[in-house]
Formats: sequence, structure tokens, C-alpha cells
Amino acid sequence: PRSVEYRNGVVYMINQRLLPREFKIEKFRAVEGVAEAIKNMTVRGAPAIGAAAAFGLALYAETSKAETKEEFLDGFYKAYETLKNTRPTAVNLFWALNRIKNLVEEHREDSLDEIRRLIVQEAQKIADEDVEANLRMGHYGAEVLPEGNVLTHCNAGSLATVHLGTVGAVVRVMHKDGTLKLLWLDETRPVLQGARLSAWEYSYDGLNVKLIADNAAAFVMQQGLVDAIIVGADRIVANGDFANKIGTYMLAVLAREHGIPFFTVAPLSTIDMNLKSGKEIPIEERSPEEVLTCGGCRIAPDVPVYNPAFDVTPHKYLTGIITDRGIVWPPFKRNLKKLFSSL
Amino acid sequence: PRSVEYRNGVVYMINQRLLPREFKIEKFRAVEGVAEAIKNMTVRGAPAIGAAAAFGLALYAETSKAETKEEFLDGFYKAYETLKNTRPTAVNLFWALNRIKNLVEEHREDSLDEIRRLIVQEAQKIADEDVEANLRMGHYGAEVLPEGNVLTHCNAGSLATVHLGTVGAVVRVMHKDGTLKLLWLDETRPVLQGARLSAWEYSYDGLNVKLIADNAAAFVMQQGLVDAIIVGADRIVANGDFANKIGTYMLAVLAREHGIPFFTVAPLSTIDMNLKSGKEIPIEERSPEEVLTCGGCRIAPDVPVYNPAFDVTPHKYLTGIITDRGIVWPPFKRNLKKLFSSL
Repeated sequence: PRSVEYRNGVVYMINQRLLPREFKIEKFRAVEGVAEAIKNMTVRGAPAIGAAAAFGLALYAETSKAETKEEFLDGFYKAYETLKNTRPTAVNLFWALNRIKNLVEEHREDSLDEIRRLIVQEAQKIADEDVEANLRMGHYGAEVLPEGNVLTHCNAGSLATVHLGTVGAVVRVMHKDGTLKLLWLDETRPVLQGARLSAWEYSYDGLNVKLIADNAAAFVMQQGLVDAIIVGADRIVANGDFANKIGTYMLAVLAREHGIPFFTVAPLSTIDMNLKSGKEIPIEERSPEEVLTCGGCRIAPDVPVYNPAFDVTPHKYLTGIITDRGIVWPPFKRNLKKLFSSL
Repeated sequence: PRSVEYRNGVVYMINQRLLPREFKIEKFRAVEGVAEAIKNMTVRGAPAIGAAAAFGLALYAETSKAETKEEFLDGFYKAYETLKNTRPTAVNLFWALNRIKNLVEEHREDSLDEIRRLIVQEAQKIADEDVEANLRMGHYGAEVLPEGNVLTHCNAGSLATVHLGTVGAVVRVMHKDGTLKLLWLDETRPVLQGARLSAWEYSYDGLNVKLIADNAAAFVMQQGLVDAIIVGADRIVANGDFANKIGTYMLAVLAREHGIPFFTVAPLSTIDMNLKSGKEIPIEERSPEEVLTCGGCRIAPDVPVYNPAFDVTPHKYLTGIITDRGIVWPPFKRNLKKLFSSL
């Protein structure tokens, strides 16, 4: 099933907090519930967050009891703000919300029923386009990645998107083509998206995976056991710098040290051409509890903690960006600009 | 208290598997129990393992019911083998066992009672010397480390040695001197020696600590928040390459990338001049359970795991080696040789 769906006034999400212990689909009938689910990582992964937020607006559109257009739009902007103030780093959230807001503003003169219909339709379109984009990225990525062992961090699989994944699409196409020998999975502390989610979804699909502590990644590279590294992205900016799950920057430095190609893969909706450099990306700091506990067990005494959820990888470490419109190679600033002006 | 002690036929160890949840001192009255405690990491840390093994032989010496010297020596060699076949990477284990074996062989002609007495005395000497060596290393280290924020990995504190620690001595002297602003602690998956042991012992002693997921180390370096990195060692070889807890090699590469001084600190008993390069150091692979669980909680589905307990850092990443006989600077091969021929 898709990680997030919408039907008749209900947003459905696979609860990613419970995996792999329990597979449960949560139902949300109010915008506040959807916002809370984005915040507490019931749904996570930049593209999945974007679709979830869009469905939050669809939910509002179909269930709002507003009788006048003015009343409806008041509520719409409130829902928009509620959904926007959930997580700061991934740009797909803002991209999806703004895409619907802009549509509403273009159709301000239409009937209230028509506006409701357009919002729901646009949200479904955002989700459907994500799945199509993933399939395209899968094929582009499988073409440029070398045959052999691939290492990935966090989860940019089916669960991180509406379906299939960004990294997930690439490694699934490689698996089908027979070019993926082994998929190394970083467990990805503190929230363990690698151990919990990637291990679950990729082994379910029959890929040959091997799980490691994040600390072992440098060692397996040193042993010559990694032919390529591929990670997702929460926000890519105009010069090619990108934010992704904490630990990504470490892998990028190590990849260069070992001469290993290092790719990020993301749809255009993850690219924020409004920011010039990665230094401008806001980095979310999450609760100390995520570090003081692990998988529900308390692991440390009550000491001060620093828990940045993301880091920024400077573009100089990046071999290429796999997008749904093909591969972007260095120099990234010029080539990203070219890509966007060609649309 | 000391992490490991011996009195009248009993080896005492702080149970490091239970910390920080529970502080418990275990008692061992048989060599097999001591060997099992080394294997299962009730006691861990290269110098503490060395002392624990020496005390295992002391325990044998005082409690063996052998009536003839021949019978005693048979049992002695069995105890020696049992203790030796526990963990492969840290050299202090073999160093301590061989020191006692050599002494026994030198005194083969002495009376059985005298041999028993010599073994116990030598084991106590090994433990006492470790504490003195740590104090010396603390002062040498505090002299060369820059004032500011220090990052460490795993636990090379009081618990990893008989008392005080290697890294532990350095940061404690710095703390006393007022030159340690902040001590960053990597949690150190999979066994969490940083989160469980370092966080516990350093915060207990009033040091200003901050705990991070291992994935965040590169990010804090990138932010300019680390002035020096200091780690322990399980085995240093003749060219300066050294084995230490998995994740150390990653930190070494990142330190060089960020221009941060990177030191290891260890007593001479950790230096193995019989091996020419780090490639010859045997790396222990431990149970998948350590990665599939965390602090007692199951975190991942049942997938294949790779769990190397140590990695090897090539000497080119090392700024200097802090020993109990002063600092060894590059070129390490020449200067280590000089140090050992001066003894």
C-alpha cells in the first residue's frame, strides 16, 4: 500500500513509528491530527511529508462546514499554517502546500464547490506524480550507478515517499536488472530509519541487504566493500548543497576519501532554487529523548544532548543528483539553473 | 572503586553491561567465570581486560588444589589458554598473560608456594602500574591538547582501565586545569559505551559533557565545535596504525578533513611492536544481536548483519600517540622504535 493516501474525508498513513514491530494504518479525520503525525514522524521522508500535507488540505476541503467562500478560505489558510509549522527542513512540505495555495488563489472566483473539488484533485495529483517521478528516477539512477554493492543511509524507500521511493526506486530497478549485489543499510541513529524501515521494506522485496551500525560504514568502505553510495534529500539548494538525515555529510566525506561515487536522488519538488547555499537551510533540532532512548529503551543517564536531525553536505562531495528529469552533473549551480529554466 | 580488583581468591568487577541502570560489583571464584566476563563484556576496555586476565591467573594461583608443581603448571597453562581465547583484538590481554607466564617460566625452579605468591604479586603490580601509567598519560595529554572542546568515542575512561582511564585521565586533568570547555561523547553503537559508560562516569565527576548520536560527529566538526579528538586504543602497531572501537577510523578521516588534531592515548602495554602494519591486527566480529537490539530493545527485523567490533586507523591520520612515557610524534615507525629501544 501507499505510505499515505486520501479517500472521502480520511487521510490514511502507515504508522512508521511502530514498524517493524507492528504494521498499522492510521486514519485521520482532522487537519490537526495530520499535522501532529508529520511532527511526531508517524509519516516521514520529504516526499511523503509533502503528500501528507497536501492530503491534509484535501481533508479540510472536503470536510469543512464553511457555508461561505470567505469562511472556507479563512479555515483554509489556518489549515495551511498548521500544516506548514510542523517540520522545518524538508522543502517538499512547503512546495506541496504552496502548490495548492497558489491553485486556490488562481481560482478565487470559482464556486466554493469547485474550489473544494480542485484542492482534492490537486492533492491526488501531487501523490500520483510522486509515484511516477520515482519510477523515472529509478531508471535514471540504475543507469548511472555501477554494478555491485550499494550503501544507503536512513530510509528513502517506499515509506519515505508515496510509493516506491527515491533511493528505493533506484535499488529496486537495479535489483530487477541484476546489477545490485548487496545493499548496505546504515541503521541511522537516533530514529533508526535504516534498521526499522529500510531493513523491513527492502528485505520484504527480496533485496540482498546487510545491516550495520552507522559506525561501521567507514570500515566497510575501507575494506573495498562499497561501490556506490546513494541517499535521499530533504532539500537541495541552487548550488547543489543538500540537507539530508544526520550522518549523510559523514558518508560524503568518507566516500570522497575512498574514491566511491556519491549520489543523492530526489524529485524536482525537493530542489529549492530560492536558497543559494546549504548554509541557509534551517536544521531541525529534535528532542533529547531520541538520543537518550533507543527503540523504546532508555540507554543513557540524564545528561545534556545535542540532537540535530539533519546535516548539510556541501556540493563538492557530490558526484551527481538523480532527478525525475535526468541526472544533474557538476557544475551544479549552472546545471540546476539550466534544468529549471528548461521546464 | 577500581573497575577490576583481586583479593583472597576473588576477582571483583564492576558489571559494565548493567551500567548506567544498575551499579553492581560481580564476584568471580573460578577462571572460567573471569574468561566469560571478558567475552561478554562485563569488563571491557583494553587495559581493564589485561588486568582482569592477570587477576584470573592470580585466582588460579591461590585457589588451585594442585599438590605437585607439575599438576599446578598444567592447570596454569589451561587457565592461560582459557583467558587468552576470549577476545582477539586488544593486545593488553596477551601482554598481561604473557608477562605472568614469562615470570612463571623464569621461576620454574622455585617452590610451588613461591610461584603462587609471585603470580598474585605480579597481577597486583600490573593493576597498580596501570593506574600510575594513566596518571602520567593524563598530564602528558593535558599538556598537548588545545584548550576548548574535546570529542571522544567509546569509553576509555576509568571503567576501561583499572582506574582513572587513558582518555579519562587526560580529560580529568584538563577539567581540573580548567582547559576543558566541553566533552562531546559519541554514543558509540552498537554497545553504547559512550552513552552508557562515558556519560555516566564523566558527568558523575562533574565534567561538562554533551551526548550525540555517532551520526552527528561530522556535523559538530563542520560547525567548528570540536578543537581536538582523543580516543583510546586496543592495539597500536610498529608503524603507528591502531585498532580501536568501530567508528574510530571514521572520526580520524573527519578530523583530518576539518583540520582537527587527532590523538590516541594508551600505555606501552597496548603497543604491539611485533606487528608491522594495522592490516595484521585481527578484527573481532561480534554477534548480530548487538546490532539487532539496542539497550535491550529489539530494533530491527531479522535481516543479515555485519558487526565488526573494531576498525583500524592508518597512522597518516594520527597527530600523536600519548603514552605513559610521553608523546610519540610522527614519523611513528622511527619514533616508536626509538622509544622501545630506550627502555
